Amino acid sequence: MADNVNSDVKGKTPSASQIEMTELVLPNDTNLLGNLLGGRLMHWMDIAGAMVATRHSNKTVATVALDSLDFRHPVRMGELVILKAKMTWAGKTSMEVAINVYAENMKTGNVILTNKAYLTFVALGTDCKPSVVPPLIPETDDEKKDYIEAEQRRNERLKKRAKE
Amino acid sequence: MADNVNSDVKGKTPSASQIEMTELVLPNDTNLLGNLLGGRLMHWMDIAGAMVATRHSNKTVATVALDSLDFRHPVRMGELVILKAKMTWAGKTSMEVAINVYAENMKTGNVILTNKAYLTFVALGTDCKPSVVPPLIPETDDEKKDYIEAEQRRNERLKKRAKE
Amino acid sequence: MADNVNSDVKGKTPSASQIEMTELVLPNDTNLLGNLLGGRLMHWMDIAGAMVATRHSNKTVATVALDSLDFRHPVRMGELVILKAKMTWAGKTSMEVAINVYAENMKTGNVILTNKAYLTFVALGTDCKPSVVPPLIPETDDEKKDYIEAEQRRNERLKKRAKE
Amino acid sequence: MADNVNSDVKGKTPSASQIEMTELVLPNDTNLLGNLLGGRLMHWMDIAGAMVATRHSNKTVATVALDSLDFRHPVRMGELVILKAKMTWAGKTSMEVAINVYAENMKTGNVILTNKAYLTFVALGTDCKPSVVPPLIPETDDEKKDYIEAEQRRNERLKKRAKE
Amino acid sequence: MADNVNSDVKGKTPSASQIEMTELVLPNDTNLLGNLLGGRLMHWMDIAGAMVATRHSNKTVATVALDSLDFRHPVRMGELVILKAKMTWAGKTSMEVAINVYAENMKTGNVILTNKAYLTFVALGTDCKPSVVPPLIPETDDEKKDYIEAEQRRNERLKKRAKE
Amino acid sequence: MADNVNSDVKGKTPSASQIEMTELVLPNDTNLLGNLLGGRLMHWMDIAGAMVATRHSNKTVATVALDSLDFRHPVRMGELVILKAKMTWAGKTSMEVAINVYAENMKTGNVILTNKAYLTFVALGTDCKPSVVPPLIPETDDEKKDYIEAEQRRNERLKKRAKE
Repeated sequence: MADNVNSDVKGKTPSASQIEMTELVLPNDTNLLGNLLGGRLMHWMDIAGAMVATRHSNKTVATVALDSLDFRHPVRMGELVILKAKMTWAGKTSMEVAINVYAENMKTGNVILTNKAYLTFVALGTDCKPSVVPPLIPETDDEKKDYIEAEQRRNERLKKRAKE
Repeated sequence: MADNVNSDVKGKTPSASQIEMTELVLPNDTNLLGNLLGGRLMHWMDIAGAMVATRHSNKTVATVALDSLDFRHPVRMGELVILKAKMTWAGKTSMEVAINVYAENMKTGNVILTNKAYLTFVALGTDCKPSVVPPLIPETDDEKKDYIEAEQRRNERLKKRAKE
Repeated sequence: MADNVNSDVKGKTPSASQIEMTELVLPNDTNLLGNLLGGRLMHWMDIAGAMVATRHSNKTVATVALDSLDFRHPVRMGELVILKAKMTWAGKTSMEVAINVYAENMKTGNVILTNKAYLTFVALGTDCKPSVVPPLIPETDDEKKDYIEAEQRRNERLKKRAKE
Repeated sequence: MADNVNSDVKGKTPSASQIEMTELVLPNDTNLLGNLLGGRLMHWMDIAGAMVATRHSNKTVATVALDSLDFRHPVRMGELVILKAKMTWAGKTSMEVAINVYAENMKTGNVILTNKAYLTFVALGTDCKPSVVPPLIPETDDEKKDYIEAEQRRNERLKKRAKE
Repeated sequence: MADNVNSDVKGKTPSASQIEMTELVLPNDTNLLGNLLGGRLMHWMDIAGAMVATRHSNKTVATVALDSLDFRHPVRMGELVILKAKMTWAGKTSMEVAINVYAENMKTGNVILTNKAYLTFVALGTDCKPSVVPPLIPETDDEKKDYIEAEQRRNERLKKRAKE
Repeated sequence: MADNVNSDVKGKTPSASQIEMTELVLPNDTNLLGNLLGGRLMHWMDIAGAMVATRHSNKTVATVALDSLDFRHPVRMGELVILKAKMTWAGKTSMEVAINVYAENMKTGNVILTNKAYLTFVALGTDCKPSVVPPLIPETDDEKKDYIEAEQRRNERLKKRAKE
C-alpha cells in the first residue's frame, strides 16, 4: 500500500462505511421539460459521498475533487434516484468515494445506471486543518481493483494539478 | 389471507419494494438547541413510505393514515438519519409500510433506533380514485408476523373511525 | 388535577397560547397528481404544535409523541391549509397540543376539516434536559373535556410503551 | 363608492377574507447575526396578502405594488412572526390588502408590531388577463377609514406612475 | 455632502460595490398560472441589496426600509431574472441601494425592465448596534443625480415617520 | 471549424450569452464547520452553465457532462460566491460552458478564484430530443484559444467513453 497511509490507526473495510440513499424527484428538482436538473443530482452525489467519508473517518469532511462525470440518461419527475456510495481509497488525510447512481421508473419498475462518479474528500479537525484518517482495507477482488484504480486516478490528478 | 386482497394480480414480496434512505441533519432541520425537528423526520418517514408503496403498486400513492409515533431519542445536527421502509400488508387498494428510523453519530459510530412507525397509503389511478394493488406475499417468519399484526392494526383503526 | 402538575408555577389558559397558521400549497408540496404530500402536512402540524407548546412554556420544546393520524381528504395544489393549534393538557415537563387542519378551496370558498391530531411535546432547559412548565387551566367546557381526554390518551400511551 | 367598482357582483366584507399566518424564524431565515432577513419577511407578507386577495376574489392573483415599508425592529432567530392580513379596498380588478406583522419572543411572551404594509394585487382569469372582483363592503369604522385611505394611496400611486 | 457622513473614513465609489445576480424561475417560485411570486422577487431584491451594502461597509447589514415598488410585467416560469444593484447614498450608518430588475425570455432573447426599487440598509457591529460606514463618492453624472435624489427620498421618509 | 457545426444558422459570440451570478452563503449551505458544501456549489455551477447554454441556444438544455473539478479553497458562511459563465464551444446540438467561481470575504474585501470547471449541455426540442444550436463565433484571442481547447477536451471525452 502507499506510503501516505496511516499505519498506526486501525483500518476499516469499504463495507463498514458504505451507504444507500434514495431520493424522489419532485417538481422543483426538474427543468421545464420535467427532467432532473444535473446540479441537483451532483448535490445528492456530494452528500452521499460526504456521508461515507465521514463514516470512515469519524470526522467532518470537505469535498476536494470530483472526477469527470457523464449524464447519460435523463431522469424524469416522479422517478426514484438511488445513490450507492462506497470508499475506494484512503490516504493520510484524504479519501476517494465511488458513487453509482440509478434511476428507477416506479410505474414500470425499470432501473438504469445513470451515472458513476469518483469524489475525493479530506477529513478536517476542529481547527479546519486536514486530519488523519484510518487506512482502507479492501476485502473483495472488486474492492482491491477499485483501490489500485483510485491510486492511478489520484496520481493523474496530482500530475495534472502540478502542470497548471 | 384477507378477502379484500386481489387474487387476479400477481403478488410481490416485501423485499421486492423495500428501500433504505439516508439523510444528513443540516442546520435548517433543527431547533434552537440543535435537535432535529420532529416534523422534518415525519416528512422523511412519509417520503420513505411513499417510495415503498409506489414501488409495490407501480402507481402514485397518497398517505391515508399514520399509526401513533414516539420520539424517544433526540437526533442532533450533523448526525445521519437512516430510514428503512418495508411493506407489511396490502389490501385491495391500500398498503401498510413499516418504517424504522436509526440515528448514527458519525464521530463515534454509535447507532440507535429512534422511531418505529406504520404508515398506510392508498394507490391512485390517473383519475385520482383508489386503484387496485398487487397482493403482498410475506416470505420470512418476521414478514408473516408483520402481516398478521398489520391486519390487527387495520381492524382497530377501522373500528376507531367507525366510532367517531 | 394530576399529581405531576406544577403547583408552584402560575397556570395559563389554553387560549393564552393558541395559534392559527395558514399555508398555501405550492407545486413542491405536492405529488405527481397535484395532491399535498402527507409528510409536508405533518411537518406543518409539528411546527404549529411546537409554537403553542413554546408559547405555553416559554421554553424550547421537542416533539415526544404523535397520536394516530388519518388523512381523510386529499388537499390540492393552490388550496389554503389552515392549522388551528391549542393546548389540551400540561404535566410537569410535557404538554399535549390538539391540531385541527382545514383545507380551503379558494376558488369556491369551500372549507373542510381534513385532519385532527394530538402532539405531545417536552420543554427543554438550556442543558437539553426536561424542564418544568406552567399548569394548564382549562376554562370552557370543551377545554375541560379535552383535558380529561388528554390524560386518558397519556395513560394509554404510557401503558403501551411499558408493554414494549 | 368609486366608479371602478363592480356593482353587479355581490360584495364581501373585509372580515370574510382576513387571515392570520404564523411563522417560526429558523436558522436559514436569518443573517450571520441571527436576525430575520428582510427579504424572507417580505416573502411571507406577499403570501399572506395573496391569500387574502385570493379569498376575496376566488381567483388567482398577482402582486401589483407594495407601498413603502419600514423595518423598525430586528426579529431574532427562534421568535414567532405573526402576520395579520385584511382587505382595505377593492376596485374593478385590483385589491389592496393591509398586513400587520408582529414578532413574539416566546421566552418572554413579549410581542411588538414590527411592520405595517399595503400590498396591491390584481385578480387574473385563466387567460392571465385582469378579471373582475367583488366589491368590498367595509363594516366597522376602522374598515371605512381604511377604505378611504386606500383610495388616497391608490390615487397617489397612479399620479406618481403617470409622471414617470 | 450631508453632515451625517463620516469624513474620517476613506470613501468608496458606487462601482466598487455594485453586483449582478441572475436567477432562473423554477416551478416552486411561481403561482398556479406559472407567474413568478412577488414575494420571491422581493426576497431576491433584498439579498442583492444586502450584498451591495455589505460590500460597501464590510459589515453585516440589516434591511431598514423599502421604497414603494411596482410589479409592471408578469415574469414567467423558465425566464431569467437579472438583478443589478448599486449604492446610491451612504450616511453615518445607513446606506441606500438601487435595484433594477430585468426579466429575460430565453427562448426569444427578449429582455424587459420589470422593477426598480430603493432599499435602505444599516450596518451593524458585532453587538448588533448601528456601526459607521465609509462615505459614498459618486463619480458619474448619473451617480451624482442618484445621490441627490436618494437624500430627497430619505428626507421624505424621515418626515413621514415623524408624522406617525 | 469542426464539421459538426451548423452552417445554416446565424452564429453568436461568447459575450452575447455570458452571465454573472452572485450567491450569499447562508447557514443551510454549509457543513458543521461553517464551510460551503461542495454539492451546493456544483448545483450553482450547473444553473449558471445552463443559463448560458439556454441563452445561446434559445432552447431548454440538459447537462451532459462535467469535466473534472477541484475545490481548492474552503468557502465560509457569510461569504459571497460569484460565478462567471461563458460559452467556449458549440457543436450541432451540444455546447460547452466555462465557469469560474470566485469567493469574496465581504469583511476584508478579499477575493479568490476557488474553482474553474467546464460543463457540457445539449439543447432539447419540445420532444425532449437533441435540437440544433447556433454556431459559436469566438472573437477575442482568449475565446479562440478556449474554443480549440474545448474541442480537445471533447475529443478526449469521446475517446474515453468509447473505451468503456
